[in-house]
Amino acid sequence: MLFERIAVTFRRQQVMATLGAELEAVEPGVVTIALPYSEALTQQHGFLHAGVVATVMDSACGYAAYTLMPEDAGVLSIEFKTNLLAPARGKRFRFVGTVVKAGRTISVCEGKAFADDDKLIATMTCTLMTIRDREGVTG
Amino acid sequence: MLFERIAVTFRRQQVMATLGAELEAVEPGVVTIALPYSEALTQQHGFLHAGVVATVMDSACGYAAYTLMPEDAGVLSIEFKTNLLAPARGKRFRFVGTVVKAGRTISVCEGKAFADDDKLIATMTCTLMTIRDREGVTG
Amino acid sequence: MLFERIAVTFRRQQVMATLGAELEAVEPGVVTIALPYSEALTQQHGFLHAGVVATVMDSACGYAAYTLMPEDAGVLSIEFKTNLLAPARGKRFRFVGTVVKAGRTISVCEGKAFADDDKLIATMTCTLMTIRDREGVTG
Amino acid sequence: MLFERIAVTFRRQQVMATLGAELEAVEPGVVTIALPYSEALTQQHGFLHAGVVATVMDSACGYAAYTLMPEDAGVLSIEFKTNLLAPARGKRFRFVGTVVKAGRTISVCEGKAFADDDKLIATMTCTLMTIRDREGVTG
Repeated sequence: MLFERIAVTFRRQQVMATLGAELEAVEPGVVTIALPYSEALTQQHGFLHAGVVATVMDSACGYAAYTLMPEDAGVLSIEFKTNLLAPARGKRFRFVGTVVKAGRTISVCEGKAFADDDKLIATMTCTLMTIRDREGVTG
Repeated sequence: MLFERIAVTFRRQQVMATLGAELEAVEPGVVTIALPYSEALTQQHGFLHAGVVATVMDSACGYAAYTLMPEDAGVLSIEFKTNLLAPARGKRFRFVGTVVKAGRTISVCEGKAFADDDKLIATMTCTLMTIRDREGVTG
Repeated sequence: MLFERIAVTFRRQQVMATLGAELEAVEPGVVTIALPYSEALTQQHGFLHAGVVATVMDSACGYAAYTLMPEDAGVLSIEFKTNLLAPARGKRFRFVGTVVKAGRTISVCEGKAFADDDKLIATMTCTLMTIRDREGVTG
Repeated sequence: MLFERIAVTFRRQQVMATLGAELEAVEPGVVTIALPYSEALTQQHGFLHAGVVATVMDSACGYAAYTLMPEDAGVLSIEFKTNLLAPARGKRFRFVGTVVKAGRTISVCEGKAFADDDKLIATMTCTLMTIRDREGVTG
């Protein structure tokens, strides 16, 4: 089952547990991760740090790409770019990664981050590479 | 003193303590942050998650811009883009943010992330906005 | 009328005429520009050069932001990022810029480039600044 | 000879001739292209359009990557991001592409654009893919 396939690798990303992120939904090409607010993740104004937002969006994008890959493949972010549209202020955040293009070698995903009431707070474009062997992860 | 001015705001970024990041060096336009490896920050292969790398580089860039701003100004990342050049494998990492252009409203910084032995593992370009009042942070 | 307001400034961008680009549609927050294929715009394989694709997407994004600004404002791209998803192969291309966030100072737009039959060939994220006086264009 | 190898493919990029760009210097991992100012390439204020700046920087980055690749390889930009630091105002512009990482599959280059008197007007990060066959160009 697709959710369980993603959940297995999600649990191996220890930083997800450190941040308190939870895998919320998995469909082919679309993955949603939730994150409750925590003071431990904030910048100087008490909002989520932009890097935390980017971290979870990047994982959502990576898992979205992974849903469309062969079972034995790995996936690696080669670059991402995020725009911070509004302060990450809220009690609970959702991060949605969606595949824009699933290529043989290169995939491109878009991420969106939402605060309470579905306010869009950030967007991401993420370029990923399909890898067959871990040693080759950086090209 | 410049180091202390940056250290004060660094300590207010609770996520820096959560990650274990330490402010290492501050010069006008250049800030270095160090991060020891921790399993709590890893992705599925045991390397630092790309988002953690981006989080600390973003802070290094933000503080670098801040060193060149008036005392009463604030700084906000409006976007950043990072390229992951190699797996974040190592015992201790250094993140250097350098101002490329310090503008009245918009500043641009470049970030570099290094693993042990100064191996370059990631680069960043970060666009920041000088803000006078916190409410105006998102334009 | 909104189309004519945009058309006036479009005609002042001489590079649009040099490329053969035509303003196709204008709605509040969304602008479409068309570009017929020309050998004069190609890279070594005979497809449109990625930079040409980016040039027209950037203009579509800039005009989209401009539709939501006060009459006396100017708009300036401070950065953009484009992903090339497929070769720019076709007879006629369409470039659509859409506002994602219209801020007082900073706006963010997304661009999409399509070849014949609405094949998506590239995406863009563009960050723009509202300017009141031309001399201040670079922050 | 390396210059001639690059010059051959440069001449096949018809858009370079359309813009008036000239291959200026080639070293392993570093390529410089020059561009005289022309009204035909301007935006509404009479400066070079940001997309033109990006087009030539992208080519400089692509050729820089190409200098480090096997003779029978091709190179393709999969994404680029540019920051416009100052208006592209001047009589003659130089665009320098430099390889940051030359990978087996993925290379990363940085571009810089200079106006008269070596004023830095724009930066770029460009991610490129080595290709062996043209049909595989988009991953």
